[in-house]
Amino acid sequence: MGRFADGLEERAADVLPEAVFRYFRQGSRDSTSTSEATAAWERHRFLPQVLRDVTEVDLRSTVLGAELACPFAVAPTAMQRAVHPEGEVAMARGIAAAGSLMVVSSNSGSTFEDIAATGVTFWAQVYVTADRPACLPLLHRAAAAGARAVVLTADTPVVGTKHDGEGPTIWDLAGPGWSHANFPDGYGSSPGDAKATDLGPQDVEWLARTTRLPVVVKGVLRADDARRCAEAGAAAVWVSNHGGRQFDGAAATADCLEAVVAEVGDEVEVYVDGGVRTARHVVTAHALGASAAFMGRPPVYALGTEGSAGVERLLGELDDELTEALMLLGCPSLGRVTTALLSR
Amino acid sequence: MGRFADGLEERAADVLPEAVFRYFRQGSRDSTSTSEATAAWERHRFLPQVLRDVTEVDLRSTVLGAELACPFAVAPTAMQRAVHPEGEVAMARGIAAAGSLMVVSSNSGSTFEDIAATGVTFWAQVYVTADRPACLPLLHRAAAAGARAVVLTADTPVVGTKHDGEGPTIWDLAGPGWSHANFPDGYGSSPGDAKATDLGPQDVEWLARTTRLPVVVKGVLRADDARRCAEAGAAAVWVSNHGGRQFDGAAATADCLEAVVAEVGDEVEVYVDGGVRTARHVVTAHALGASAAFMGRPPVYALGTEGSAGVERLLGELDDELTEALMLLGCPSLGRVTTALLSR
Amino acid sequence: MGRFADGLEERAADVLPEAVFRYFRQGSRDSTSTSEATAAWERHRFLPQVLRDVTEVDLRSTVLGAELACPFAVAPTAMQRAVHPEGEVAMARGIAAAGSLMVVSSNSGSTFEDIAATGVTFWAQVYVTADRPACLPLLHRAAAAGARAVVLTADTPVVGTKHDGEGPTIWDLAGPGWSHANFPDGYGSSPGDAKATDLGPQDVEWLARTTRLPVVVKGVLRADDARRCAEAGAAAVWVSNHGGRQFDGAAATADCLEAVVAEVGDEVEVYVDGGVRTARHVVTAHALGASAAFMGRPPVYALGTEGSAGVERLLGELDDELTEALMLLGCPSLGRVTTALLSR
Amino acid sequence: MGRFADGLEERAADVLPEAVFRYFRQGSRDSTSTSEATAAWERHRFLPQVLRDVTEVDLRSTVLGAELACPFAVAPTAMQRAVHPEGEVAMARGIAAAGSLMVVSSNSGSTFEDIAATGVTFWAQVYVTADRPACLPLLHRAAAAGARAVVLTADTPVVGTKHDGEGPTIWDLAGPGWSHANFPDGYGSSPGDAKATDLGPQDVEWLARTTRLPVVVKGVLRADDARRCAEAGAAAVWVSNHGGRQFDGAAATADCLEAVVAEVGDEVEVYVDGGVRTARHVVTAHALGASAAFMGRPPVYALGTEGSAGVERLLGELDDELTEALMLLGCPSLGRVTTALLSR
Ligand SMILES: Cc1cc2nc3c(=O)[nH]c(=O)nc-3n(C[C@H](O)[C@H](O)[C@H](O)COP(=O)(O)O)c2cc1C
Ligand SMILES: Cc1cc2nc3c(=O)[nH]c(=O)nc-3n(C[C@H](O)[C@H](O)[C@H](O)COP(=O)(O)O)c2cc1C
Ligand SMILES: Cc1cc2nc3c(=O)[nH]c(=O)nc-3n(C[C@H](O)[C@H](O)[C@H](O)COP(=O)(O)O)c2cc1C
Ligand SMILES: Cc1cc2nc3c(=O)[nH]c(=O)nc-3n(C[C@H](O)[C@H](O)[C@H](O)COP(=O)(O)O)c2cc1C
Repeated sequence: MGRFADGLEERAADVLPEAVFRYFRQGSRDSTSTSEATAAWERHRFLPQVLRDVTEVDLRSTVLGAELACPFAVAPTAMQRAVHPEGEVAMARGIAAAGSLMVVSSNSGSTFEDIAATGVTFWAQVYVTADRPACLPLLHRAAAAGARAVVLTADTPVVGTKHDGEGPTIWDLAGPGWSHANFPDGYGSSPGDAKATDLGPQDVEWLARTTRLPVVVKGVLRADDARRCAEAGAAAVWVSNHGGRQFDGAAATADCLEAVVAEVGDEVEVYVDGGVRTARHVVTAHALGASAAFMGRPPVYALGTEGSAGVERLLGELDDELTEALMLLGCPSLGRVTTALLSR
Repeated sequence: MGRFADGLEERAADVLPEAVFRYFRQGSRDSTSTSEATAAWERHRFLPQVLRDVTEVDLRSTVLGAELACPFAVAPTAMQRAVHPEGEVAMARGIAAAGSLMVVSSNSGSTFEDIAATGVTFWAQVYVTADRPACLPLLHRAAAAGARAVVLTADTPVVGTKHDGEGPTIWDLAGPGWSHANFPDGYGSSPGDAKATDLGPQDVEWLARTTRLPVVVKGVLRADDARRCAEAGAAAVWVSNHGGRQFDGAAATADCLEAVVAEVGDEVEVYVDGGVRTARHVVTAHALGASAAFMGRPPVYALGTEGSAGVERLLGELDDELTEALMLLGCPSLGRVTTALLSR
Repeated sequence: MGRFADGLEERAADVLPEAVFRYFRQGSRDSTSTSEATAAWERHRFLPQVLRDVTEVDLRSTVLGAELACPFAVAPTAMQRAVHPEGEVAMARGIAAAGSLMVVSSNSGSTFEDIAATGVTFWAQVYVTADRPACLPLLHRAAAAGARAVVLTADTPVVGTKHDGEGPTIWDLAGPGWSHANFPDGYGSSPGDAKATDLGPQDVEWLARTTRLPVVVKGVLRADDARRCAEAGAAAVWVSNHGGRQFDGAAATADCLEAVVAEVGDEVEVYVDGGVRTARHVVTAHALGASAAFMGRPPVYALGTEGSAGVERLLGELDDELTEALMLLGCPSLGRVTTALLSR
Repeated sequence: MGRFADGLEERAADVLPEAVFRYFRQGSRDSTSTSEATAAWERHRFLPQVLRDVTEVDLRSTVLGAELACPFAVAPTAMQRAVHPEGEVAMARGIAAAGSLMVVSSNSGSTFEDIAATGVTFWAQVYVTADRPACLPLLHRAAAAGARAVVLTADTPVVGTKHDGEGPTIWDLAGPGWSHANFPDGYGSSPGDAKATDLGPQDVEWLARTTRLPVVVKGVLRADDARRCAEAGAAAVWVSNHGGRQFDGAAATADCLEAVVAEVGDEVEVYVDGGVRTARHVVTAHALGASAAFMGRPPVYALGTEGSAGVERLLGELDDELTEALMLLGCPSLGRVTTALLSR
């Protein structure tokens, strides 16, 4: 028997409308960064340890003080109702069942309240608006519903160009409730509602002060930016190139992680996403110093093909893989994974 | 929608006579250097900056004191009347409309006066002749018509061999007025009219003294040669391997640029060409220290397929790409692009 | 005439049941490590020596005090009766005829006594059991039959997942006597009979003390683990990633060998396996400091296609190749092979 | 028009009997070294010099005191009568016409006297025999006929195995006079006539003393062996892996050259062969410190397809290429080619 995860993208391509599948799969411009993401994890080779006691393997990890049973966390992706009628709620159910963490996109088609009702541990992702107060209703609603952290996506002063071919795009198919479920009525009609193009460290401070939640800055690829985030009071930085959807040609996150960890790893948590697909990739991320690894597309494909059960299955399969990987590497827990496992 | 630029070469191959298209596309011998040029730009990966104010993006740049609205400058290529009846004049119109800079080949089929009449900012490229005074009429005519600089092409003591197959070449098709429009009558019939094989720094001095224009030395790949040019009074050096048309196996210009900038970048301007095709390549060139990047073939293909409007469209599209790229890289202008953007 | 060894895998694929061939060929998960093993040997280039006396070439080598006529030793592989009715006994006959060394898998389908009767020099491979004494009967039986050493396979706290497709697996075809011929009746039915997951250096000491045989630790890829083995009294460490069948993504053994030799090479013997297929690979292994190189799959394929004679032919052909290689490298014996032969 | 040299191998494949063509083309075993030879030259990239006087380009070079008009020298290859009825004599005519140097194989099918009669400058290649005096008649005959040097091939204590397929080999087709034209009658029938397997530096001394000719040691890939040759009185060392026909996996000569030059370049001349096919390769060889570059197969293919005229044409074309290359690199002669031309 093969892996559930292995044919996932192909199966999603089969069942989803072409425009929807393309929206999720595509990277910006030539998809350079998207297509290099997984390969950068795969390049690493391991030096497994032997003669260690791995009788008890513990997969638990802690992010921002919350314990996760499953260390494969789920990154924010917009438009989940495009792949499943219940969208983010169905996603939340699968994640909750697996014991992982969900980051809810600001473009969610489900409300924070409905998501929270599944019992999932969740964070709220936000794009800060040109007119700062315009994003506050979303944040307050998230906090009230139980979001444990705010994720500030910092890599999107403008949305990276994607090349679509002929035919309809997801925006032609999008139903009214596919996104923006957590925004007040009329949001989006004023220029101040647009994504801010003048973000700075002061916005990190402002978000922390205003929401009283830990602030995670997502989209950081550089050590100097990580330092600026840490100094502005970020609780964590998230090494991401937005799944290759913003600057095409951005370095692979697997190649950026270590320098960021070296700079701020003692002060804040460091997460990573981008092309993470297997337990081995997650081990690599932890070996390079990450506290958590996130996946964007695979959970969406699992949701689109098998609903909540698919999401749970995906995460469960990865848990099993990770248990085996840790045993074979001589590590009874992710905390024991260090850079010394990598062959360099 | 895809990029206008992406199918340009293929569309040019469709509309141009085979011998004409081949003339523009081909490199010398095995086309090693031609085929590696773009790949050398593509190799670089970026570390975009976040949390910067990119509300105002300014594409303007300055070369030899002249401000360009569009930083994609156009390198000299001979025989533009082979692809368009109005040749260099039509090219000039498109460049002027885009707000860029044109370098007119010494083998132009249009006169400097007609080119100048389009309002374009232009420089005149020259091959210094075996008998030095033989090239003066061209230079004086250029200066009189308003050329802002002289470009001395230094990499062509002999024309690199190209392998043509069977069938006619561009020289079989060439109409009488396709080139040499700016030379006096009878030019080319005396041995002294041939390209000099004994160029030296003294020719740079002589050109500057004689023309009273800034002299740009084109075809420099080495730091030591750049130093000799700077000491001879060049205003700029232009890192070029002639589009891969001279020594086949010459290093990619993207790989030569940095050493030249390190040697003379504080004293003279440094330009680059060779395989530049996208805004990302231009950003890379500036990150490696170039003051300006030039393109040879793409404007010719745009001219050959859509005339002046095609040239303007090509440059406008690149401007739009560049605005997005600079925003995503956290740089409000090209002046803010430094080597720190590159992942190494 | 080509090499006997070259078409061996293909011929085995032809004559063996698909499930049997697949079992031997496959690596764990994506077969990354399996498929990289030979390539890592092939990467090395040589600087042959000239003007040396190679009139007499001596292939003999010594492992743990025993002299081998043929330096291509045979690694333990389970289930040899799946490819030949007489299984390990037929294998032993071929190895004995060639003058090489056999390591008998703990999952042998032939008894140590029958194997010993062929006159082969052999060692016994063991998986230490969760309940330590459970593995003693096998070890005592091996010792009594004449095993010269115990090989503790340390890389298997759990068996690495293999992806089989549809159809039967070897376990569906396995006859009753295909494995476990050397275990006492009823072995395997108690939980303590399972592979230990808490192996440590103390087990190396215990094995040496209990069996009074030299203990070889197989599956070591790291210098620090090699050090721990040496300090625990191992007579040798065996650099192996189990033919790519345990942690997929483990480094190629050719790339691990040198660091292990640097750490413990002065104190214990160091062996290597994984993708060794030619005399050149064996020379490379010795150049990198190995005392012996082992092969797993090729002897099985030789056994499956041509029986004992095939095994002898394979080893004999390699001997001839090695004689030629040593002459062309200017080395009259393997002992004269050093790292200076490699181009770096 | 393409290069005469480019289709040469294909044309030779067309006109020569398959067994003959295969004999010349093949490398030992997997042809690893043969197939990597040219690629190793091609890997180098150049930094052409500009603003140099290249009005006069001088291709002359000097080897062992003899001036060559054409710097593409011809390595010894056996059995030239297999490709042309007049064999080595026809080869000599072409080389003489081009003004280059011929090294006559000890397995020549033409006599030294007939070769000398063409006026060609030639050296005699020798395999020293197990019984040393057995090779003296050949050497004395060569010297008497005018050979200017002796080339001791040191890389062949045994002939490297080649894998032939089905069908006849060159030895089945070989006519009586295809080789050994310069040996006394009955040569080859005594064991002492076999190639020596115990060559040492003393044989270099002995050859020099006995023949009173400069001795060139061919087949040296290592700096330490080059040193031993120089100390034994060699006039030159020739970096060669025998066209990939001896140890398969030997490093590319382009990768060995520099270390040999660094070791002995101040004391003896250093030559190189292996995969040299273009003027650029020859320039690379000189840039890395070689005094001369030799070609083995291409002149044979030229001889087989177009006779003496083909050989002359091949060498003449390369001369023209080299003139252009030197002009474009800013070097008026090969003596001005240094390592600074290479991009590193
Ligand atoms: C279709 C799609 C939509 C996304 N939407 C958002 C979003 O709304 N907010 C955000 O911060 N990131 C968004 N991302 C980026 C993801 O959070 C994540 O960084 C990326 O998908 C990780 O790469 P992976 O898909 O290779 O795992 C989106 C990604 C995709 C593919
Ligand atoms: C067909 C063709 C003609 C050219 N003619 C000239 C010329 O007359 N003078 C000159 O200095 N460079 C000439 N060049 C070189 C260009 O100025 C420029 O260096 C090169 O085209 C840049 O590479 P790119 O085409 O990849 O952008 C020519 C290039 C081409 C392709
Ligand atoms: C089918 C198969 C079964 C194996 N069984 C065992 C075993 O029982 N015990 C053991 O220590 N290693 C076992 N190995 C690993 C081999 O001993 C050896 O490490 C590996 O095959 C070497 O790689 P190679 O096949 O590329 O030569 C097995 C390998 C294969 C392919
Ligand atoms: C068919 C053939 C026969 C050869 N015979 C000899 C020989 O008799 N003596 C010798 O020293 N080298 C011999 N060589 C090696 C050549 O001298 C030379 O080292 C080699 O061919 C150079 O590589 P190239 O063919 O790629 O140019 C032979 C090579 C070939 C291909």
